[in-house]
Amino acid sequence: MDIFISAPGKVILHGEHAVVYGKAAVAASLDLRSFLRMTKTDDENVVIDLPDIGIYRSWKISQIKNCMSQTCKPDTMPSPTEDVLQQLRCFAGLKDEGISTKDLAVVAFLYLYHSISSYSGTFLPLKIQFSSCLPVSAGLGSSAGYSVNLAAGLLLLVDMIKQPKPSQPLLTHQTWSMEENEVINRWAFLAEKIIHGNPSGIDNSVATFGGALKFQKGEITPLKSMPKLRVLLTNTRVPRSTKVLVAGVRDKYDAYPDVMQPVMDSVAAISEECQNIFTRLKSDEKNAECYKSLEELIDINQNHLRIMGVSHPALDTICQVSAKYKLHSKLTGAGGGGCGFTLVPPGTSSEDVQSVMLEMENHGYDCFETSIGGLGVCFHHEIDDSFMLPTNFKKN
Amino acid sequence: MDIFISAPGKVILHGEHAVVYGKAAVAASLDLRSFLRMTKTDDENVVIDLPDIGIYRSWKISQIKNCMSQTCKPDTMPSPTEDVLQQLRCFAGLKDEGISTKDLAVVAFLYLYHSISSYSGTFLPLKIQFSSCLPVSAGLGSSAGYSVNLAAGLLLLVDMIKQPKPSQPLLTHQTWSMEENEVINRWAFLAEKIIHGNPSGIDNSVATFGGALKFQKGEITPLKSMPKLRVLLTNTRVPRSTKVLVAGVRDKYDAYPDVMQPVMDSVAAISEECQNIFTRLKSDEKNAECYKSLEELIDINQNHLRIMGVSHPALDTICQVSAKYKLHSKLTGAGGGGCGFTLVPPGTSSEDVQSVMLEMENHGYDCFETSIGGLGVCFHHEIDDSFMLPTNFKKN
Repeated sequence: MDIFISAPGKVILHGEHAVVYGKAAVAASLDLRSFLRMTKTDDENVVIDLPDIGIYRSWKISQIKNCMSQTCKPDTMPSPTEDVLQQLRCFAGLKDEGISTKDLAVVAFLYLYHSISSYSGTFLPLKIQFSSCLPVSAGLGSSAGYSVNLAAGLLLLVDMIKQPKPSQPLLTHQTWSMEENEVINRWAFLAEKIIHGNPSGIDNSVATFGGALKFQKGEITPLKSMPKLRVLLTNTRVPRSTKVLVAGVRDKYDAYPDVMQPVMDSVAAISEECQNIFTRLKSDEKNAECYKSLEELIDINQNHLRIMGVSHPALDTICQVSAKYKLHSKLTGAGGGGCGFTLVPPGTSSEDVQSVMLEMENHGYDCFETSIGGLGVCFHHEIDDSFMLPTNFKKN
Repeated sequence: MDIFISAPGKVILHGEHAVVYGKAAVAASLDLRSFLRMTKTDDENVVIDLPDIGIYRSWKISQIKNCMSQTCKPDTMPSPTEDVLQQLRCFAGLKDEGISTKDLAVVAFLYLYHSISSYSGTFLPLKIQFSSCLPVSAGLGSSAGYSVNLAAGLLLLVDMIKQPKPSQPLLTHQTWSMEENEVINRWAFLAEKIIHGNPSGIDNSVATFGGALKFQKGEITPLKSMPKLRVLLTNTRVPRSTKVLVAGVRDKYDAYPDVMQPVMDSVAAISEECQNIFTRLKSDEKNAECYKSLEELIDINQNHLRIMGVSHPALDTICQVSAKYKLHSKLTGAGGGGCGFTLVPPGTSSEDVQSVMLEMENHGYDCFETSIGGLGVCFHHEIDDSFMLPTNFKKN
């Protein structure tokens, strides 16, 4: 029988760029999910099928057992060593130089499969298929969706975590316990390190725990209260370089420190204020004043990001289109293109939402109606229509 | 023979609204000038002709001598008392209630004429005509242009200041000495008090001294170095209430003090930085880097003003139109409509300038090509075409 697991993407709500200057940022789960189908097979093969990025690989278990010389020590969870990574690249037939993110997805799989199997003492045959509703390379944590799903699937396969029981008879999906999530998250972080080199751990934490979290100076703290908020997520499809954007902000900061430091301070205060509002909203879900405040903070921060020089005409267009319908938007992530989100407060008519989405699409952007602050990684007792599914996971 | 005097308008370059929170702001003279023609007559009449606001009044000197019971004590320069103002309103046949700015221009004239004449001991017949290139009620200090021209004209009439001699044979106009300017400015401030109630003194100081000044917590300090900068001044003609705008910023400040206080700090730093750049530009007039910095600060501050909620779609349009030609704009004054200025750095093609002006006008705005940081109040030995003249002052 197939096992289904899913994990959310991530948006940065407030604090992008300011976080580089030691300020707090707030990230939330994005309900554009990625899905993993794991089939326990009875042959001797280990298969991964990643149709989104055109990868299909198959190995014999007997081969894979010898793909790396070290086994991971999961209690201390060290970073994968360069030696081990080189062995894995060699085993997978990949060149050391110019290795792509796609290739790294294969290396990360091999590393997790070998380490978890070694640790549990069981190398089992399986087929894994993975597909995502998230745009790739858009700063929405698509690789963390892969890492978290993979970790959860492999840990479940070897019984290191249990299949969650439905808490309600009609609920088709279920999250794991906090303790099990912590195990999943730690393993997923290793895969993220392989894919990204030196990730912050934010993406995998959000994909695992869901809700929202604060991060500041390397420390990640889940928010106690995060309401589920309806949003539109718009991908401008304008490519950008995070490195160049971060360097541009640094240039401005160095040129006008007395002007730019207070801008970062104001962003930090927005991240704090936003958390207070979430707490109030959690106890009074339709509090219109809270929504008004969230919208004001979105507008203020979008202007701060303009000041930092990381907005883009396409992102300004997102703001203008939503403003026509009295909705408020900001860029999320590095800016300079990429994605923006639009808060959709209760009471927004579905006609308005449809009109905004249509206008965004007429500008050549991809626009998704979704939510933030929802569930982290989930086990699915059956795949049903309450989730937006990638094409490969649809029933017919 | 007629005497001609002119005075500039004013723009706030940086610090509007932040000044309410004790931060420094920078204002500069705007070379859209107002002109005063004073004719020494040999009858017994005192005539004012203000065609811009449709006012023409004439009195006998013998009547006017008794229009107020007190004479002004110019050394201490007190504010005009309510008693005196009521006498003047009564003399001019104006109602005490619902008195308009136009009516106050008449009261201010009577006050200055009577006080200066009493002080000097000479009541002379004259005809004064006044007209301005400045849009009225647009936050550009049009009333200060009137007050300063009037003070200079009346002080000159009774010999309390001298007619400046041309410093160069070909120069058709000449400013007064610093000491004489101080006298003009103090008398002009009295007229401003009559027109505005409780003015800051910025508008008359800029109109008198020209250049630029810093003001903070009620203190006005002229900038030592102010280069003359080419600008476009665009009047959106969108009416607005300064009071409502100031109250809106206060609401936001009170709702999010930790977010908004750093915004004001950043604006204050922009005002400071701007002064440093002016000093550098003064010694190297075409320094491209200085212009680039001025443009960056304009953009940053325009976004701060958006954060304060005092921009307006028409002001955003000014920014967008100029951005198409790689020019940078910000609102000036209270915002919410009113005016914006666009810096025109050296090397901007006249085709681009014409295109921007045309586009602004196509949007229904008035757009003027002018400069900031130029001369304050001037005596004109003859009226010539190097000045933009109001229709009433043109030769043919």
